[in-house]
Amino acid sequence: MGEDFFRLSATEAARRIAQGGLTAEALVRSCLERVAEREERIGAWAHIDPDAALAAARARDAEAPRGPLHGIPVAVKDIIDTADMPTRMGSPIYADNRPDADAACVAAIRAAGGIILGKTVTTEFATFTPGRTVNPHDARCTPGGSSSGTAAAVADFMVPAGFGTQTSGSVIRPASFCGVCGFKPSFGVSREGVLVIVPSFDCVGYMARSFDDLALVHGVVTGGAAAPLADGPGRAARIAVCRSPVWQHAEPATIDALDHAASRLAALGAKVTELALPPHFDGLEAAHATIMDVGLARSLRREYDQHRDRISERLRARMERGMATPTQKFLDALALAARCRAEIAELIGGRDALLTPSARGEAPVGLGMTGHPTFNMIWTLLHLPCATVPGLTGPAGLPVGVQLVARHGADRPLLALAKWLHARLIA
Amino acid sequence: MGEDFFRLSATEAARRIAQGGLTAEALVRSCLERVAEREERIGAWAHIDPDAALAAARARDAEAPRGPLHGIPVAVKDIIDTADMPTRMGSPIYADNRPDADAACVAAIRAAGGIILGKTVTTEFATFTPGRTVNPHDARCTPGGSSSGTAAAVADFMVPAGFGTQTSGSVIRPASFCGVCGFKPSFGVSREGVLVIVPSFDCVGYMARSFDDLALVHGVVTGGAAAPLADGPGRAARIAVCRSPVWQHAEPATIDALDHAASRLAALGAKVTELALPPHFDGLEAAHATIMDVGLARSLRREYDQHRDRISERLRARMERGMATPTQKFLDALALAARCRAEIAELIGGRDALLTPSARGEAPVGLGMTGHPTFNMIWTLLHLPCATVPGLTGPAGLPVGVQLVARHGADRPLLALAKWLHARLIA
Repeated sequence: MGEDFFRLSATEAARRIAQGGLTAEALVRSCLERVAEREERIGAWAHIDPDAALAAARARDAEAPRGPLHGIPVAVKDIIDTADMPTRMGSPIYADNRPDADAACVAAIRAAGGIILGKTVTTEFATFTPGRTVNPHDARCTPGGSSSGTAAAVADFMVPAGFGTQTSGSVIRPASFCGVCGFKPSFGVSREGVLVIVPSFDCVGYMARSFDDLALVHGVVTGGAAAPLADGPGRAARIAVCRSPVWQHAEPATIDALDHAASRLAALGAKVTELALPPHFDGLEAAHATIMDVGLARSLRREYDQHRDRISERLRARMERGMATPTQKFLDALALAARCRAEIAELIGGRDALLTPSARGEAPVGLGMTGHPTFNMIWTLLHLPCATVPGLTGPAGLPVGVQLVARHGADRPLLALAKWLHARLIA
Repeated sequence: MGEDFFRLSATEAARRIAQGGLTAEALVRSCLERVAEREERIGAWAHIDPDAALAAARARDAEAPRGPLHGIPVAVKDIIDTADMPTRMGSPIYADNRPDADAACVAAIRAAGGIILGKTVTTEFATFTPGRTVNPHDARCTPGGSSSGTAAAVADFMVPAGFGTQTSGSVIRPASFCGVCGFKPSFGVSREGVLVIVPSFDCVGYMARSFDDLALVHGVVTGGAAAPLADGPGRAARIAVCRSPVWQHAEPATIDALDHAASRLAALGAKVTELALPPHFDGLEAAHATIMDVGLARSLRREYDQHRDRISERLRARMERGMATPTQKFLDALALAARCRAEIAELIGGRDALLTPSARGEAPVGLGMTGHPTFNMIWTLLHLPCATVPGLTGPAGLPVGVQLVARHGADRPLLALAKWLHARLIA
């Protein structure tokens, strides 16, 4: 068998393919063998067609390079449309759904030479009810959600990179639980062809095992710079530790991880301060929940009206809560969100990023739920770019990420900072 | 009959209602009488129920003030959901559509005490095929679109303020053609309950006969400051005249209006410069069209598949162009949009606003189309707040607006600047 190509990063594999030292077919075959070996245990995939993936790989090998992802396999969360595969939304209602076009982000991957390896497991409509995926680090534990399959597949070396989406904490949390690099860009990346849950929160994001890979995917999706990512800000980083209004939910694993990261940053020469958000930011978690309740009730109304018996009880209850939400409560939530969005840039000020938890702690034991998005909701609501940096572990030996959050639009600088910290987080 | 209450601004009417000198019922009755007198000629309304509006007015009169719009009638474009009225989308496919909830922006109006007077005519799905509305200044001319009914109803004093939406130029252009104040906020105002055309362009906007009224509605919708609007920036305004990459489409009426506005601004002490956008911004008009083609093809796909014979030929053709758009062309358009969005803030720099045309010229003669959004597309794509200032007229004696465009998030300062210019545009 020789080298385990499935362990390569997207960046390294793309370099080798471009230089002729590796074929797309060999890479995809290696990933498929890894899937064949591991999938029964992990349950990361909602749809995978090895013959089609190999055919695509051979087609890439037979043609001139299309772009920076030429020959690289990518996973796609199963609420994102693909023209040649089902998109089942984690719901029996969509068992036969075959979109006739790729989502914009999928089309971008293919145009850059990437190969869609398959569709990954999502919770029901990217909400609460899990699929069958387990955490590759401990099969008794949740991988997190809603982008469960992408997190597990990337962590388990089945694919170098993949798409998730985040409405509450569906990229950062599973990436943290599975020990991979995760990135949710600033709100506004094209969502054409992605299931709508909450129009003012939903965001496409990515997971990989390096920040260079995340920058590569982000560059392809947004058509931005394909230049290599800098290693940090090029001067002393300015970081504020922000324990956030939900700090009381931080478990020892997360408290230790945050302390460790702050100490490492200081030891590395960063200027580390503390930021306490103003008291009215305390209401953002509840505001997020309210807007999400109402959003779900509206976005999935057709499914609710026509297929109620095939919606999980948990989601039905949440939708019914949304339908019963007093209008004034919804409006107050929208108003608080708008106010805080207008204020957050000034609060971040000249800092490169805030350092804040990625999740409450390690992945909890149990597969009946995917953990809490407590530490993600307010940043998603604020439309800010978020990255989770892996490398630390908790008392159970499971991964614990730390989250960096930057100002709206500072996506590439945030990725560069995360890359720099990732390489230095363990002393 | 005494005073023509229907001519009052929302701000003045709200002040009088709050002080007890006017009842909501008298105001609504006056507006309804104006509608009864004028509607046969103008055709602004898709649905209006005088008894229901009067009942709502009496209910407001019988209760404590709810908020700053207490008792004020507001018009709602017929692609925005209302729980108690049909939402017909300008399409026979939705002839029987009765949403079960208010859109977020409608709910905000009602929570502030406002009264939804009725639904206003929209073009088919807010796209190209006009409804029956005519321009109140000349019934042979289009009122513009797609927010045709709101523009005509506000201009013709049937209602002091109303909602439109803008995906290309559907607020600014009809406001310019009908001679009213129009405002499209920065991208990101809640769209829950509004028809989706292009997820990354669609924006709720407003029209009224004063910028104070627009600020009042914007404050209610976003939950922001209800404080009165300042009159200008409080120092010499910094304005750049931006003829934009589509200047060759400016007709004499627009050329004269822009020259006049620039001269007035200079005479009023503003620092007036010129801004030529970099050459790659020339591609934004085509990028907008491409993203819109693809967006329409996706957003209305269900209607296309199930009710093709009830979609206008013009819209079908545009959707089919979207379906046939090469993926790379779509991706290139998204990438150019992302690049220019990242650059525009620095190009605007320290200026309070850009001064640029609102439309090609006066409202064209003919009711078969609603004019071109040429001068609106790039600003919508760039997610910037836009205001059209009325007051000037062209050679045919019809209104010609001038447009002010500010940086993302500078919504209130832009409205204050527009208010200041509006009061001084005619020497």
